[in-house]
Amino acid sequence: MKAAIFQGPRKIEVGERPDPTIKEPTDAVVRVVLACVCGSDLWYYRGESDYAVGSPIGHEFIGVVEHVGDEVRHVAKGDFVISPFAYSDGTCPNCQVGMTTACLNGGFIPAGNGDGGQGEYVRVPLADGTLVKVPRSTYSDEIMKSLLTLSDVMGTGHHAAVSAEVQKGDTVAVVGDGAVGLCAILAAKRLGAARILALSRHPARQQLAREFGATDIVEERGEVAVEAVKHVTDGIGVDAALECVGTNEAMQTALAIARPGSIVGYVGVPHGVEMPVPTLFYRNIGAHGGPAPARAYLPELMEDVLAGRINPGHVFDFETDLDGVADAYAAMDERRAIKSLLRVSHV
Amino acid sequence: MKAAIFQGPRKIEVGERPDPTIKEPTDAVVRVVLACVCGSDLWYYRGESDYAVGSPIGHEFIGVVEHVGDEVRHVAKGDFVISPFAYSDGTCPNCQVGMTTACLNGGFIPAGNGDGGQGEYVRVPLADGTLVKVPRSTYSDEIMKSLLTLSDVMGTGHHAAVSAEVQKGDTVAVVGDGAVGLCAILAAKRLGAARILALSRHPARQQLAREFGATDIVEERGEVAVEAVKHVTDGIGVDAALECVGTNEAMQTALAIARPGSIVGYVGVPHGVEMPVPTLFYRNIGAHGGPAPARAYLPELMEDVLAGRINPGHVFDFETDLDGVADAYAAMDERRAIKSLLRVSHV
Repeated sequence: MKAAIFQGPRKIEVGERPDPTIKEPTDAVVRVVLACVCGSDLWYYRGESDYAVGSPIGHEFIGVVEHVGDEVRHVAKGDFVISPFAYSDGTCPNCQVGMTTACLNGGFIPAGNGDGGQGEYVRVPLADGTLVKVPRSTYSDEIMKSLLTLSDVMGTGHHAAVSAEVQKGDTVAVVGDGAVGLCAILAAKRLGAARILALSRHPARQQLAREFGATDIVEERGEVAVEAVKHVTDGIGVDAALECVGTNEAMQTALAIARPGSIVGYVGVPHGVEMPVPTLFYRNIGAHGGPAPARAYLPELMEDVLAGRINPGHVFDFETDLDGVADAYAAMDERRAIKSLLRVSHV
Repeated sequence: MKAAIFQGPRKIEVGERPDPTIKEPTDAVVRVVLACVCGSDLWYYRGESDYAVGSPIGHEFIGVVEHVGDEVRHVAKGDFVISPFAYSDGTCPNCQVGMTTACLNGGFIPAGNGDGGQGEYVRVPLADGTLVKVPRSTYSDEIMKSLLTLSDVMGTGHHAAVSAEVQKGDTVAVVGDGAVGLCAILAAKRLGAARILALSRHPARQQLAREFGATDIVEERGEVAVEAVKHVTDGIGVDAALECVGTNEAMQTALAIARPGSIVGYVGVPHGVEMPVPTLFYRNIGAHGGPAPARAYLPELMEDVLAGRINPGHVFDFETDLDGVADAYAAMDERRAIKSLLRVSHV
């Protein structure tokens, strides 16, 4: 099969890999219909985190089940499914409290020497716990794209809002205007936030931020941004700050704009992020976040997508096919695209 | 008046200070009936944090209102009151959401060059927002001591449990067997925790831990303690870990025994505590805490004390009068006492 391969920083190539087969009786093999590039893929793309040369890449995809192992009960050949970026058994104590990214038997895709989502087929371990069946496979392209976001980016934005414990009526600030930050705005709105401040200086992203529910745009950064947010919150800070970047500057901004007693929800994969304990302690600011349990959030978010209540797929503003994957990365790296879609096969 | 004065590490003396008077129309002057020594007092007592030589000390007391300023409406001369360790106006946006230790006009006792709780009288700023009137002044000695704990230690233990979001049925672990840790056990029990693990190796403290609701005693420390807690929680960790010491070792233990997705509530004044961000992130462990808004918690906790439902005053196992204050510190420093009571005057 064809699959995207990491050949070193800024070198993404399409190569040949073995067609996946069922290795464990709990596996499924999924033919990828739509995939995409994640903001977290840019860390190794830019050489800012390690990644083994020659490895498959990508972890967000929806598609059609082609094969299932003997013990798979909940999905069958022909089912149209969403795969979250982490696989999980759904039955361990961590899964049972909704913390599927801490599954005792789980892991992340691409798993070990497994398949990446940016390829024609993916072997998905623990298929019963991991894959979520979509009622039909015949939806508008808009809905299909939104279903794809439930694989990671919308679940991750939602996790920022859930971790920060956004409540109805809250004033929320979102640090980061990438696809995760934009989805965090949508998630905060969905949870009832009354006022949402988007920290963004990019016109196209500001427009989408407003569509998703942002009421205020803060174009400043760093100290000046903190002052701007304080200004519109009577000097107090926001009820919930969502950190959706993963840099130390973004985290310090989020901590500084959070009101005393509140929690910063953070989902950007941390790179050099520090938590200044006395600052957190004396202001009673909490911090909570991590890899989103996208699987646990999938049913409720899918319901809203299928009903047309949320359209997170609007984050895709660039599209190509699997052969164009290198450009899909480049477009995001150069901030020409918020998020790049890959059309891999037809339903 | 007589008051305890800090004269340098391990040198606590009783000296003379001017009788406090009303300086602001919102002040009250309180005659101290009962006061005590806080675990946090030991930091400067041991020379581990800075404190100005010649300054008044102490921040926990209950007593009788002697004078009020012209603008004070909610308390009057003769009222028996509890003073939390921080003063607050009760009306600013932070106070209104219960975060009284972040009051925009507030501060901590001893305030500036003000009075300490370990003395005969204290000028309390913002009396209307700060002081809580007790219905009567004629209670058993047991209840009087429990009322005193609402000034700080019981509110602080409660804050650990609230910050960790202890829920009914939870398995909770408390790191630290000082008076705050013991009160955190009582608070967790009060909030409905089903199983409470007390990390303690001190027989008298273990006994009180059990009285307050601990179901399991973990005598180990560090890595071995983590293994022990994991062993009794099926390898998962606890639903809520309460860090009640303030050292880095205590925090690392609390973070390690918290189950994925949970929050470590921390109230020990941090000394050299570090938050290892990748560890927190990849396990989805949150951290939340700070100076307890004891004032906000006072009404509900006082109701339970007056009804005899909780007896946090049992943490006092040493008592003396104001002249004996040096020994009160020494007893806690040497771990001869869990917490030292000072009987300053009669009601």
